[in-house]
Amino acid sequence: MQPEHTDKRYEEELKKLREDILYMGGLVEDQIQKAVKSLVERDSPLAETIIQRDHEVNRMDVEIDDLCLRLLALHQPAGKDLRFITTGLKITTDLERMGDMAVNICERALELNLEPQLKPYIDIPRMARIAERMIRESLDAFVREDTDLALKVCKDDQEVDDLNGQIFRETISFMIEDPHTINRAMKIGFISKYLERIADHATNIAEMVIFMVKGKSIRHIKEIPQSI
Amino acid sequence: MQPEHTDKRYEEELKKLREDILYMGGLVEDQIQKAVKSLVERDSPLAETIIQRDHEVNRMDVEIDDLCLRLLALHQPAGKDLRFITTGLKITTDLERMGDMAVNICERALELNLEPQLKPYIDIPRMARIAERMIRESLDAFVREDTDLALKVCKDDQEVDDLNGQIFRETISFMIEDPHTINRAMKIGFISKYLERIADHATNIAEMVIFMVKGKSIRHIKEIPQSI
Repeated sequence: MQPEHTDKRYEEELKKLREDILYMGGLVEDQIQKAVKSLVERDSPLAETIIQRDHEVNRMDVEIDDLCLRLLALHQPAGKDLRFITTGLKITTDLERMGDMAVNICERALELNLEPQLKPYIDIPRMARIAERMIRESLDAFVREDTDLALKVCKDDQEVDDLNGQIFRETISFMIEDPHTINRAMKIGFISKYLERIADHATNIAEMVIFMVKGKSIRHIKEIPQSI
Repeated sequence: MQPEHTDKRYEEELKKLREDILYMGGLVEDQIQKAVKSLVERDSPLAETIIQRDHEVNRMDVEIDDLCLRLLALHQPAGKDLRFITTGLKITTDLERMGDMAVNICERALELNLEPQLKPYIDIPRMARIAERMIRESLDAFVREDTDLALKVCKDDQEVDDLNGQIFRETISFMIEDPHTINRAMKIGFISKYLERIADHATNIAEMVIFMVKGKSIRHIKEIPQSI
């Protein structure tokens, strides 16, 4: 039996882990939202700011990893807590890579903002909103151990994939009609792909939450179950 | 002090963790090599086989995760071992995603094999060979805790990025010259991008190895140091 102050310290650190992961998720969500804003509103200084701010996402990644290692080393958790902390370790990697995707969106936005606009952006902001919601909900599912919400995130991924397919077909028709648009159309296609990858990362988090709670893997199942 | 048989068991399980990760790496390497072969040799049945075999990669991912959790729960390692095991947990996620990229290459190969070949594939197999070597070397760096080798992997990533840029420019000129090639050229561009992402995952592993051994993060440093 450990002394009471250690238990209290442990609970506080677990609480901090939950809060830190939610904070990092909020930061990444904001990075993505502003990255897309810098494209839609052709705001290159905003894109530069977002690229600079990526170091904050990376700092959170390192901090949360350290906290997880400290929890494992000092408190030697077992069972549910152990699974929670190791899932936390994996989630930060996904969040960090989503942050990189936001940087990539900004880089393409900076290039596109130098040329005349090919078309108004409608589907890209729509994709971004769904992807941002998926991040938020996957992390809520994690901290609340809510597998229903996690399943919803897995299902929502289809919507993002469909929008990505639609944008892909649209960019191809632009290119066929006028080869002068090829460069710009490709870049819009890349941005769509980055958003699709962000949604994939959120889906990965949701899958890990289901695995953490149920001990069941739903990865690579073609048909997502109604409930598990 | 734990009884001797527990120590022996622990050492055996740690050894198994190293072996399993190397085995999973070898499997992923083989998946990528054969995926590219199915493209270059227009061998669609091979592509189908590789897609089917992805479940083996996923199975290894779940198995290694379980082993890591067991090691953490039963032996409560600290210090160097703790860092090694938690890095192992993260590495399997990267390997599993590389396996997904091999599947994506096969899917595009199946589509491309239905149409006349646009051009002989020269740079794609070259990229694949470098990416495969990067996987092998990043995992060797992990099990041997060899930061010099890990740094080499980070540097090699530039070569893959350059080849990807070259293929991107080449596909654009195909498309401009003849819009009938757009669909095929885009798919070749995607395959190049998948290989670039595989190399990125290997680089991520190498960065984690450096962090594991030195406690220093070299992520997002523009200039890779000569030594650390």
